Amino acid sequence: MKGYFITFEGAEGCGKSTQIKLLGEALQKAGKAVTISRSPGGTAVAEKIRTILKEPTAGEDLEPETELLLFGACHSQMTANLIKPVLDKGGILLSDRFYDSTIAYQGYARNLGVESVKWINSYACRNLKPDLTILLDMDPEEGIKRAKERAGNAATLAGDRFDSEKLSFHHAVRNAFLLLAKEDPGRFAVIDANGSIEEVHQKILEAVHVYLGIL
Amino acid sequence: MKGYFITFEGAEGCGKSTQIKLLGEALQKAGKAVTISRSPGGTAVAEKIRTILKEPTAGEDLEPETELLLFGACHSQMTANLIKPVLDKGGILLSDRFYDSTIAYQGYARNLGVESVKWINSYACRNLKPDLTILLDMDPEEGIKRAKERAGNAATLAGDRFDSEKLSFHHAVRNAFLLLAKEDPGRFAVIDANGSIEEVHQKILEAVHVYLGIL
Repeated sequence: MKGYFITFEGAEGCGKSTQIKLLGEALQKAGKAVTISRSPGGTAVAEKIRTILKEPTAGEDLEPETELLLFGACHSQMTANLIKPVLDKGGILLSDRFYDSTIAYQGYARNLGVESVKWINSYACRNLKPDLTILLDMDPEEGIKRAKERAGNAATLAGDRFDSEKLSFHHAVRNAFLLLAKEDPGRFAVIDANGSIEEVHQKILEAVHVYLGIL
Repeated sequence: MKGYFITFEGAEGCGKSTQIKLLGEALQKAGKAVTISRSPGGTAVAEKIRTILKEPTAGEDLEPETELLLFGACHSQMTANLIKPVLDKGGILLSDRFYDSTIAYQGYARNLGVESVKWINSYACRNLKPDLTILLDMDPEEGIKRAKERAGNAATLAGDRFDSEKLSFHHAVRNAFLLLAKEDPGRFAVIDANGSIEEVHQKILEAVHVYLGIL
């Protein structure tokens, strides 16, 4: 029995969490063992590292290089202690983001050098790759609007370092994701995330069927 | 006015802390602005990361690759937010360990691949190098004996992941340090750490004079 590692990528507000939940339920109904995770995070150590990435430290900024190395550290723990064990048991792991986010955000949008980011990702993940990456594509203005609605108010949203970036940054992230999808069409399914929750869910079910031959 | 970055390397129990303190006092008496730090650590963020490196996480081991990436993250913060600011002001920074420890422990003794470790170090430190590295060389048996005496009892010592390694590991670390010193003789001063505290201190003062032209 072969396991599958499916990652969800896309900007804030594109509906990743909702769609992961719906796909998880559909897979479980079909008798699959499903684990849902997130990156950065997913294991006890990686969640500790996530706290450093997400919560500001008094008196000191996080350097972009540090950010990248901490993401790598999270991916390393997740690969060894979550992804591989789930796949070895034939299970399906759904992850809210994985290393493509690091390439898009740190490599392209923060200009840290795509080759360096890819080197660190590959080192951290021992060359493990997702079997399928669902890219929920959406215009950044729409995504930010949805994320703000979800957060209830702008103040809550601004508390997360990654959500308070300029609009041009979010456009760079989107373009980077689309470029990554173009470079690896056998792994990426690009799905228009502007439709209703049910419409997007149906497209995801179709992608899982077409790319992995399950469902 | 030029600043200097001086690192102290060597096995546990070789006397690094004591000697750093004594050199710091000597430099201060000579009118120098001295900052003392340690790696991993040295800044607020790096100290948070140090906690993850040093304290066991319930139910999950730290992967060797994770360890290396976390050391890199510490070095990145230390480089940007401690070393560079001190050097820019013409100060002297003394650090208890820096990236040579990562090469010796992770690269050689843990067999993580020296080239990978060097790549990450160089990335994390933006190619910054210590001006002088004092290697306090000592037979591992003697170092462990001293470290245990210092800790008071073996139980305390075993609480630190890095102190509870096998003897062969410590021999590998020592050989790695000596190899690094051989590769970069213009930066490394190898000092026999078996003498008395005062004898070793005098040798360090001499090395600082010879290598950096100060004191």
